[in-house]
Amino acid sequence: MSRQFLAEGLELSGGDRGVVAVVAVVALAALAVGYVLLKEVLAAGQGTPKMQDIAKAVQEGAAAYLNRQFRTLGIFVVIVFVLLFALPADDLAERIGRSLFFIVGAAFSATIGYLGMWLSTRANVRVAAAANEEGGREKATRIAFRTGGVVGMTTVGLGLFGAALVVLVYAGQAPKVLEGFGFGAALLAMFMRVGGGIFTKAADVGADLVGKVEQGIPEDDPRNAATIADNVGDNVGDCAGMAADLFESYAVTLVASLILGTAAFGVQGLLFPLIVPAIGVLTAVIGVYTTKAKAGENGLTAINRAFYISAVISAVLCTIAAFTYLPSSFADLNGISDAVKATSGNPALIASVAVIIGIVLAGVILWLTGYYTGTEHKPVQEVGKTSLTGAATVILSGISVGFESAVYTALVIGAAVYGAFLLSGSVIVALFAIALAGCGLLTTVGVIVAMDTFGPVSDNAQGIAEMSGDVHGEGAQILTELDAVGNTTKAITKGIAIATAVLAATALFGSYKDAIDKAVLKTGEVVDGISSFSYVVFTPNILVGITIGAAVVFMFSGLAVNAVTRAAGAIVFEVRRQFRENPGIMDYSVKPEYGRVVDICTRDSLRELATPGLMAVLAPVAVGFGLGVGPLAGYLAGAIATGTLMAVFLANSGGAWDNAKKLVEDGNHGGKGSDAHAATVIGDTVGDPFKDTAGPAINPLIKVMNLVSVLIAPAIVTFSIGDSASDPIRIAIALVATLIIVGAVVVSKRRGTSIADSPAETVSNGAA
Amino acid sequence: MSRQFLAEGLELSGGDRGVVAVVAVVALAALAVGYVLLKEVLAAGQGTPKMQDIAKAVQEGAAAYLNRQFRTLGIFVVIVFVLLFALPADDLAERIGRSLFFIVGAAFSATIGYLGMWLSTRANVRVAAAANEEGGREKATRIAFRTGGVVGMTTVGLGLFGAALVVLVYAGQAPKVLEGFGFGAALLAMFMRVGGGIFTKAADVGADLVGKVEQGIPEDDPRNAATIADNVGDNVGDCAGMAADLFESYAVTLVASLILGTAAFGVQGLLFPLIVPAIGVLTAVIGVYTTKAKAGENGLTAINRAFYISAVISAVLCTIAAFTYLPSSFADLNGISDAVKATSGNPALIASVAVIIGIVLAGVILWLTGYYTGTEHKPVQEVGKTSLTGAATVILSGISVGFESAVYTALVIGAAVYGAFLLSGSVIVALFAIALAGCGLLTTVGVIVAMDTFGPVSDNAQGIAEMSGDVHGEGAQILTELDAVGNTTKAITKGIAIATAVLAATALFGSYKDAIDKAVLKTGEVVDGISSFSYVVFTPNILVGITIGAAVVFMFSGLAVNAVTRAAGAIVFEVRRQFRENPGIMDYSVKPEYGRVVDICTRDSLRELATPGLMAVLAPVAVGFGLGVGPLAGYLAGAIATGTLMAVFLANSGGAWDNAKKLVEDGNHGGKGSDAHAATVIGDTVGDPFKDTAGPAINPLIKVMNLVSVLIAPAIVTFSIGDSASDPIRIAIALVATLIIVGAVVVSKRRGTSIADSPAETVSNGAA
Repeated sequence: MSRQFLAEGLELSGGDRGVVAVVAVVALAALAVGYVLLKEVLAAGQGTPKMQDIAKAVQEGAAAYLNRQFRTLGIFVVIVFVLLFALPADDLAERIGRSLFFIVGAAFSATIGYLGMWLSTRANVRVAAAANEEGGREKATRIAFRTGGVVGMTTVGLGLFGAALVVLVYAGQAPKVLEGFGFGAALLAMFMRVGGGIFTKAADVGADLVGKVEQGIPEDDPRNAATIADNVGDNVGDCAGMAADLFESYAVTLVASLILGTAAFGVQGLLFPLIVPAIGVLTAVIGVYTTKAKAGENGLTAINRAFYISAVISAVLCTIAAFTYLPSSFADLNGISDAVKATSGNPALIASVAVIIGIVLAGVILWLTGYYTGTEHKPVQEVGKTSLTGAATVILSGISVGFESAVYTALVIGAAVYGAFLLSGSVIVALFAIALAGCGLLTTVGVIVAMDTFGPVSDNAQGIAEMSGDVHGEGAQILTELDAVGNTTKAITKGIAIATAVLAATALFGSYKDAIDKAVLKTGEVVDGISSFSYVVFTPNILVGITIGAAVVFMFSGLAVNAVTRAAGAIVFEVRRQFRENPGIMDYSVKPEYGRVVDICTRDSLRELATPGLMAVLAPVAVGFGLGVGPLAGYLAGAIATGTLMAVFLANSGGAWDNAKKLVEDGNHGGKGSDAHAATVIGDTVGDPFKDTAGPAINPLIKVMNLVSVLIAPAIVTFSIGDSASDPIRIAIALVATLIIVGAVVVSKRRGTSIADSPAETVSNGAA
Repeated sequence: MSRQFLAEGLELSGGDRGVVAVVAVVALAALAVGYVLLKEVLAAGQGTPKMQDIAKAVQEGAAAYLNRQFRTLGIFVVIVFVLLFALPADDLAERIGRSLFFIVGAAFSATIGYLGMWLSTRANVRVAAAANEEGGREKATRIAFRTGGVVGMTTVGLGLFGAALVVLVYAGQAPKVLEGFGFGAALLAMFMRVGGGIFTKAADVGADLVGKVEQGIPEDDPRNAATIADNVGDNVGDCAGMAADLFESYAVTLVASLILGTAAFGVQGLLFPLIVPAIGVLTAVIGVYTTKAKAGENGLTAINRAFYISAVISAVLCTIAAFTYLPSSFADLNGISDAVKATSGNPALIASVAVIIGIVLAGVILWLTGYYTGTEHKPVQEVGKTSLTGAATVILSGISVGFESAVYTALVIGAAVYGAFLLSGSVIVALFAIALAGCGLLTTVGVIVAMDTFGPVSDNAQGIAEMSGDVHGEGAQILTELDAVGNTTKAITKGIAIATAVLAATALFGSYKDAIDKAVLKTGEVVDGISSFSYVVFTPNILVGITIGAAVVFMFSGLAVNAVTRAAGAIVFEVRRQFRENPGIMDYSVKPEYGRVVDICTRDSLRELATPGLMAVLAPVAVGFGLGVGPLAGYLAGAIATGTLMAVFLANSGGAWDNAKKLVEDGNHGGKGSDAHAATVIGDTVGDPFKDTAGPAINPLIKVMNLVSVLIAPAIVTFSIGDSASDPIRIAIALVATLIIVGAVVVSKRRGTSIADSPAETVSNGAA
């Protein structure tokens, strides 16, 4: 087994450059298709003036939030840019490229997030308007899904274009530079997921607690001061955050594939991972254009059909590409070490099976998630039934469903990893196969993003319809149906996103190891150093590392849930104040101040994202410099394993509670207003921060921590090997990182307004 | 570093045997002290005939359950006995000893559990009676704590006696035989924890759902058919299950210490781990006898003081013992390899610091758990405050508290492991230091068991008092206070138990590695085989192993929670039926059929424990034989890391909810009967299976899986190394294990009565 993955100085031939150029053109074509879809969406009617007013308020709130978020994150990005520049690199070109493409990755991530928000805040009102017209069901579904198509095409287009550009410019050094690109994308996405997730759920929970529970007014009632914020939240959380997250999944999986591809398959290994997602672009276009609900058909069925059609076409085309482009023997590959050349097996076969494993994995997760969170299957129906014995049994059964589905999803992902791993006896080739399985998953991302964006757009459309009061009868019914379909598609996306995280992280795990081996070789203390670093799994310090990695996932989840309850407390306080000070709100004579709630959400969510964000970046630094590279490897492994389970648990229990509530609202177990309904509303509220804040943020969290580890590995080795003179520096770095984390946690604990504080005041007011 | 931990053929000198004999005498003395305490408890008055009648019903129900449980487990024990006999062993003596002491370990575990149940069902009525007499507070506290003292003394006495006996008989082969002893103890304890946990919470939740929620009658009301079952549950779950669990912790920690001690410190290393807990026996006696509440003092303060006094005395005596018994240089130790002899450092210093780390760890966990679950600290108070915004925020804040406390507890335990690990550069010595830290924890077990037993006895006493209606005024008040103290002591015990699990499991991890190395050496395929097994942490298959290990913890927790809701459903159904068919129950003219509910609990909990039990034993077999020893190591690491976090999360969130309810019942936020109270009752019900079923069972689960892995490691290596002719057998074993697990899960899913099914019928009856 080669200790060096990167074949430095790898040269691209003219033909190779041609292939990359074709990929770049495909990427640009995806952007062009996105533009065509965009025009189509924007050309649709915008409904009544009242609807347009509401939409405008949402647009302004969302834009204001994202602008402020980008300004805040800008500072953070600059700091990381400088630190990244200071980290060891092979030469100046690599150093500059890595930092530069960090910015590019971050900028692309931000752009996609912004576009997702921008478009969905314009599509929502158009979907609502279309539902009101003749043939509304078809028109509304079409606009909602085309909106998703725009975001999907941009995600894959920018991701692929970025990667192709780096390969064209940097060739053999591309992997190193791509680490920066992936890190930038993942970091921005993580912050957007956390910030947007806190915003959307603080507004949602706050609005529900005062509106539905205390005042007994419906969801999205215009008298509730938090409704605009709630709708803004859907766009900045579910649209912007999710789009950035999936872009990041796309980028990081590509990065991992390209890093390992050069070592395993040489030049062809650098190019094949670009070809697979390029095929995915073509099939995504097919998927988006074939999504048409037949008469009397559920929207979800149509979306699923489109997904499966594009998946099958991808599998066929990728297999053809593998057998056309790749040789049937390792000896025929260029630019790999002699050890790999001697590997037995058929590269074309290995690559095609790996890609198919990824595509099948996507299909299985689609099915599993649908089974555990769909209203028509046993798990959600059982959760719904437990509403008859009260909220406690709803919570317990939802938690059981979450645990169980997490286990099965983790086992399925584990089986995919293990299956790809078995494809070759060479560890490098096996790792590349895992990364290629990730590329297989990627071929479905275009359709997945389209499916996901569908959710918040429909949700918002329903909100605008309800607030304006201008959509009635069949139109309202259509929007309710679309909203329910959106709930399930959102849950599915989370499953796919976490699967990409595991595959990419497992592959990155390989590049982490490579980074260490290379750094050890460079120190000149060869054989012994390596074996002492490698001989790790059975020692207690690695076990401590694994425990810390798992603990960070628990901490991050706890912080995210806590941030939501704290921010929601502030909203409850504000909405109550408005009702109290302006009694005219309840009889519609006074309009509530929506803007103030949006401001509170913006301020609080930006403040709250600092602690989990700092922890994600600095915890690997503390563990790596403090305990060493072995425990850091354990840390990553613990975070990946526990993170997978926790992410699926949070997403699926939340999804099951949400749909159990829908089940009761559809007239089961007593229907709306019954005790059973109240019990499921409690379940749904508990699930809100689970499924939309903590759960989805774990995906970028895992990748940020992995990339930080890969980037700092050489520096840790430099400080760890040889004489102990550098120990104080190493320990000082670890201590500073730890202190910053502890400081952030302490500050976030001290914060004022919490849901626990606000009611007390109001209760005393009520008593006065 | 030596590849062989076990110095086979190690001989004990006459002096050595003398030391062991003294330890055995101390162990017998502990049993004698227990007997004296027992006499004292039984001599107390038994109250009114009505109280005695109720107590008798509880005694009969509990005895019937345990007898039936032991008959069921007997079959299982026989099967494991045979399988264990078939596993590879060095010689026949070892083979017989291992299987024989497996039975002894299981029998001791069962005995302690039975004794705990037997005594607590007799002490409860005596505590209730004492509360009614003059000077009731002091008398009742004394009886409750002395009852705990009996169980505590028996736990440490039997554990220490068993280990001393094995060392006397088997000398150098003792570690191998002790694996059987520890496995028997852990396996029985796990089943008793799971079965008892399901029983107690099914009865509790079922009783509350119908009694408190539907009929509006108080807890422990004699009209509720589930009350006797609820009281039986306290005894078979919290007393019998917990006593067996802590005995198992004691035994397995000793086993791990003795295994590693021989390799690290030679003969002295085999004996020192017996001396430390022998000192613990002395200090436990002091602790039990010094627990006296001063006038006006909280019972908890008195118990904490006793704990800290005995901890300090233990630390001092252990340090003296270390410097007296152990030499100051490794060169002066007997029966160790030359490599270890050359280790620098002072054995006496290392041992004493390690033991002190363990004792300090116990103290820190005591404080941490008290902070996160006590009513007088911020976390529970904040959970209590969130009751003003409803059940959803109570659940969310409780989950946040659970996550956070799990992270800090895991980090503290991790710090202790890492601290002990840093004590020596030699991995074996470092592992032994970790095991010795576990022994340090053990010195506090006597007091801890006494503290824990206090809880269910007080709980039961209150139940008997309420049901009989014969305890009034101050007596009732005293019992309420004792019950509240019991809640906190129970939470603390769980924290200590999981800490022992981590320390023992980390140490056992070392013996797992040793078992592999030894087996590899025996195959004759030396150097390469070893290095390929050791070079593991960075490969994807290990990562899959870690994920599966973490997944098993999630699955086990989900199954346990599910079992409770399912069994509770059957209880709800039965209690409702009795109320419906005998309207006379409500006006006290008809006595409910308590026995039927006890029968249902017995039947259901025994049925439900099969699936999690089989999974615990067979999952390591499936992973080990199916994926290999590397992934099995990952599996164990994943299970330990996630298990620690999950166990503490479940225990502490449950404890926080329980005490938040108490806070509201004490008159805060609206008091009993308010909406806030209803919200905290929901939290408490969710917490019930968390803290008393799923959480505490994770501790023996971890140890069972570790010991299974240590025992099967040689067999896996035999099948894995060399030609692939044995691959079919290996894979067949893995497949059979997997199929049994899958079959058990499928069967448990198909089961009839669930909480989701029962209400539907009742609702339709109500409508008719």
